[in-house]
Amino acid sequence: MPLPTIEWEGNLEGRVRLIDQTRLPTELKYIYCEDLKSIWHAIKTLMVRGAPAIGIAAVTGVLLGIKDIHVDDAEVFFKELKNVTNYLATSRPTAVNLFWGLSRMERVAQENQGKPVHEIKELLLQEAIDVQNEDKSICRKIGENGVKYIKDGDGVLTHCNAGGLATADYGTALAVMFKANEQGKKFKVYADETRPLLQGARLTTWELMHAGIDVTLICDNMAAHVMKLGKIQCVIVGADRIAANGDAANKIGTYGVSILAKEHGIPFYVAAPVSTFDLTITSGDEIPIEERSSEEVTCGFGKRTAPEGIKVFNPAFDVTPAKNITAIITEKGVIESPSTENVQKILGQ
Amino acid sequence: MPLPTIEWEGNLEGRVRLIDQTRLPTELKYIYCEDLKSIWHAIKTLMVRGAPAIGIAAVTGVLLGIKDIHVDDAEVFFKELKNVTNYLATSRPTAVNLFWGLSRMERVAQENQGKPVHEIKELLLQEAIDVQNEDKSICRKIGENGVKYIKDGDGVLTHCNAGGLATADYGTALAVMFKANEQGKKFKVYADETRPLLQGARLTTWELMHAGIDVTLICDNMAAHVMKLGKIQCVIVGADRIAANGDAANKIGTYGVSILAKEHGIPFYVAAPVSTFDLTITSGDEIPIEERSSEEVTCGFGKRTAPEGIKVFNPAFDVTPAKNITAIITEKGVIESPSTENVQKILGQ
Repeated sequence: MPLPTIEWEGNLEGRVRLIDQTRLPTELKYIYCEDLKSIWHAIKTLMVRGAPAIGIAAVTGVLLGIKDIHVDDAEVFFKELKNVTNYLATSRPTAVNLFWGLSRMERVAQENQGKPVHEIKELLLQEAIDVQNEDKSICRKIGENGVKYIKDGDGVLTHCNAGGLATADYGTALAVMFKANEQGKKFKVYADETRPLLQGARLTTWELMHAGIDVTLICDNMAAHVMKLGKIQCVIVGADRIAANGDAANKIGTYGVSILAKEHGIPFYVAAPVSTFDLTITSGDEIPIEERSSEEVTCGFGKRTAPEGIKVFNPAFDVTPAKNITAIITEKGVIESPSTENVQKILGQ
Repeated sequence: MPLPTIEWEGNLEGRVRLIDQTRLPTELKYIYCEDLKSIWHAIKTLMVRGAPAIGIAAVTGVLLGIKDIHVDDAEVFFKELKNVTNYLATSRPTAVNLFWGLSRMERVAQENQGKPVHEIKELLLQEAIDVQNEDKSICRKIGENGVKYIKDGDGVLTHCNAGGLATADYGTALAVMFKANEQGKKFKVYADETRPLLQGARLTTWELMHAGIDVTLICDNMAAHVMKLGKIQCVIVGADRIAANGDAANKIGTYGVSILAKEHGIPFYVAAPVSTFDLTITSGDEIPIEERSSEEVTCGFGKRTAPEGIKVFNPAFDVTPAKNITAIITEKGVIESPSTENVQKILGQ
């Protein structure tokens, strides 16, 4: 079974337990956050990362915040609650799932504002648990919907980390592999190391090894050669944002892998929850690509490996056009040959 | 002007000056080898690397060896000379150019064995200088023959280091860029960092910056995205071994770049001296691919970045099929649309 990345322990006086991802893969260490400040720090310093996991950190962070609000006056409670969510919102101001999580908690409070404070607190606890459980359920459905694409004896290539560590516990792209493993299928995974931050080398390999899945680490630039050797029968990756036509933004390098897969006649699957779709944008051309600091490339792991003053281009994401995607695996079903029409067919259900 | 990577200074009592490549890019340090043992150490510890550069280390190493042979008796001299070449041959036993260089020096000695020892020594000095100069001349011809492929305003992508640091001073793939720069063409180079050993990040960027060429470092997995953005008009790479039909083995990742170039309609050039061709093999399928240690991938930056016990696949080279190569640029001319017939047309001249 995959390990829970982040979860609430106990009742309203409980705490958050999370895996400190900055210590992986050399050390598996759990952090216990007992108060608001410690969860804020955990989000800020990337101890917890990955869109759905940050959403869970947000809702459980609110629970930590209301532990210290000892009032019966609803007005005072709501004022204090707002302070809590405002504070948490400063931890990673660009993380969409952070705000999504905080909004869910605020809405529950608002919808029940006539009730006694202790009841509102219980409802907030329930909402946070629901968010956790929904994520677990969604990821498992993605696994079930995609498992048919992994056959006995297959080699599967993945890029970056779309695993349990980016969600409550089960992942998206890796959910398909976990499910295939649970069904007793024998297959091998090749994990791209995923420069510059090495999420593949550090996290994906660790998760798959932990689950007892046969995994081999390669550098990103080895994928084409591995495909040519006939070792890969399908590619499965996650996504950060999917346009209405099925174009999918994901970690830098994913687009290149999609071209290599096409060249070698290998199917290319994207696994992502419905919440990843942004139907307000018609195509991937509208997705802005974040550029990150040059130090990630020139001093990746504490040692300078490029000349001082060198220009660096460090885009964090790229966009894979829908035409390169064989299917998008969601919790609502599989979108084959993604297009605006085919996306609507599944999402409109 | 490119800096000389390795060169003989002075007469028979001279010395070898070389750039210590293990200190690049953070430090440009010249090493002076005054005796046989120091050049052996420089080759062994990769202070000097790259096939043609190792050939020059071999011939200048012989000069250092004969400095200490103070005899007039030809028989004793030849015995001592054999000791010198035998010793140098142990420095990097798998480097083909090392043996090629030693053989050239032995042949010159053999062909002149009736002459006085001091004359033979002078002829050996001349041979070593010839080897150095031939390399310079070949690389410049490659530059001249390829320069037409870089146009004003172009973006050029390269992979690994096929630069001056791998030769006497001018490189193969980078020779084309140096020449274009000398002609005053304005162009930008994108250098793949080239995992696992980062020759692109450490060496190619350093050489191009030093020559005043506009260079930007990217991770290997960013090449596809950079091409999609329209930033690349041609790819130029080196080669380690080229089959009779034009299939070219080069640093791992080159094959993938060739597929990405084809997808984006970008010409893909290989620049290499005629000596790189191995006409005894009919196609790239016959080229054995060296696999290197897993530590290069898991501990590349001095810090462990993958779980203990993880399986790693670390091929050092891959083969780009001739059909993906627009042209091979050699000192004897350009082989357009490489094929067994077209290779013969140029090499048979």
